[in-house]
Amino acid sequence: MRGIKSIREMRDWSEEQRLQKKRIALVPTMGFLHEGHLALVCDGRRRGDLLVVSIFVNPTQFAPNEDFNTYPQDFARDRKILAGEDVDILFHPSQSEMYPAGYQTNVEVDQLSQFLCGAERPGHFRGVATVLVKLFNIVRPHVAVFGKKDYQQFLVVRRLVEDLNFDVEVVGFPTVREDDGLAISSRNHYLSEQERTAALCLRRALGRAEALVQQGERDGKGILQEVKAEIANEPLARLEYVQLCDPENLEAIETIQDKALLALSVRIGKARLIDHSLLRA
Amino acid sequence: MRGIKSIREMRDWSEEQRLQKKRIALVPTMGFLHEGHLALVCDGRRRGDLLVVSIFVNPTQFAPNEDFNTYPQDFARDRKILAGEDVDILFHPSQSEMYPAGYQTNVEVDQLSQFLCGAERPGHFRGVATVLVKLFNIVRPHVAVFGKKDYQQFLVVRRLVEDLNFDVEVVGFPTVREDDGLAISSRNHYLSEQERTAALCLRRALGRAEALVQQGERDGKGILQEVKAEIANEPLARLEYVQLCDPENLEAIETIQDKALLALSVRIGKARLIDHSLLRA
Repeated sequence: MRGIKSIREMRDWSEEQRLQKKRIALVPTMGFLHEGHLALVCDGRRRGDLLVVSIFVNPTQFAPNEDFNTYPQDFARDRKILAGEDVDILFHPSQSEMYPAGYQTNVEVDQLSQFLCGAERPGHFRGVATVLVKLFNIVRPHVAVFGKKDYQQFLVVRRLVEDLNFDVEVVGFPTVREDDGLAISSRNHYLSEQERTAALCLRRALGRAEALVQQGERDGKGILQEVKAEIANEPLARLEYVQLCDPENLEAIETIQDKALLALSVRIGKARLIDHSLLRA
Repeated sequence: MRGIKSIREMRDWSEEQRLQKKRIALVPTMGFLHEGHLALVCDGRRRGDLLVVSIFVNPTQFAPNEDFNTYPQDFARDRKILAGEDVDILFHPSQSEMYPAGYQTNVEVDQLSQFLCGAERPGHFRGVATVLVKLFNIVRPHVAVFGKKDYQQFLVVRRLVEDLNFDVEVVGFPTVREDDGLAISSRNHYLSEQERTAALCLRRALGRAEALVQQGERDGKGILQEVKAEIANEPLARLEYVQLCDPENLEAIETIQDKALLALSVRIGKARLIDHSLLRA
């Protein structure tokens, strides 16, 4: 595995590989790798002749009040993990390489960015969209793999690739979970043991909603009430949002007709945890 | 010359040429071609093995109150002109090909877009930046040639290419003028004979400023007053803005020390005309 920090060097490598008709897969990450990332790496490996994994904790997708400065990092450990995973390139640019003085360009996916996490985290998806446009231009992948744990991010990326005519296949990989159902996330690291147990309320609440729909419930209000009650039942948890929406455009749904995305965000201790379930009538 | 309307076809052509290590030059236009465009075409020809000219009147860079619906067009004439100019590809997508239903992504170059024409035309440079990102992804040029008549646009493009890491060389070509000094523009077509004569006040005003600086004047206020007086002298002209600013970041300059951009916009009849001069102390 070769490590690359320079944008120019990364671009030259990709140009060279493309001229040799090699198919390049990209797995973009913010590091502090876990089993969820490794599933993406494994999937990316299958989808390309060459695999690039990027590690960049993107400052522009954190609001000033968020956890950018404390976001968990362990580059030495990440590099060691990836070296054992048949990765061709580890791209890990510095902040000043990605956002030099005078930087002033942003990319925004309008409607999709306004719902769910976008409403709670103004500017978050603008930061995500912008850094991905940069990464796509630097790495020039044929295919990029994203975790569907961040479902809204997956939709935003898919939309921006289509709207801006990037020739990149966007793959969404299913959420990877711990044995007890907790969606794996770097932010789980923030949880104390007690909070880790409390965090199971997210999956429990989603499971409750799934059961209701299976029993024939179609009314969004009733389902959301049950989910809220389930979270309220957990003293360490504070519900940030729970919404039932169209899985394609994220617009709110009142009655489940075909499919509906149930998405929620919950604060437990220092962690902001998100999860979702695709409900089918 | 081959005409291409489909994004997929254009992308496939470019991918094929790049694999053969051909250097692709792009001249993006909104059509209604004039001598200014042809100078860009000629320059583009020199800079690449292959030359793509695009014609697309981009709706998103016109504000609702602007001249999108009346912007001069004559595609048959444009095609005939380009067929005589050793152009390889004429890319002319439809509006629905570029902005299909559900489109919602925008690119914005923040600071540079706020000055001069950006202040008068909210959203204009967002539209310009967005369509150029799309064209760069579709045509995948190695070099793109822009007229410096639209000086601010040139700065915006150069900035977005650097910020978003496009591997495209951005070339700015000097303003092409009629024999009497009027900057050539598709919008000159709007002018009556009388207005056409009145339009010379732009170049006259710039010339007045150049003479003042040559005589040793360094005070911005004094220079701007003379420019305003020159435009006020022309009954058919209405000054929209005149500003003295840094030629790199467009921030206002009060005293000319080294170089200063003098830029102005004037309305004459239905036409909004812009011009500029680079003043050197």
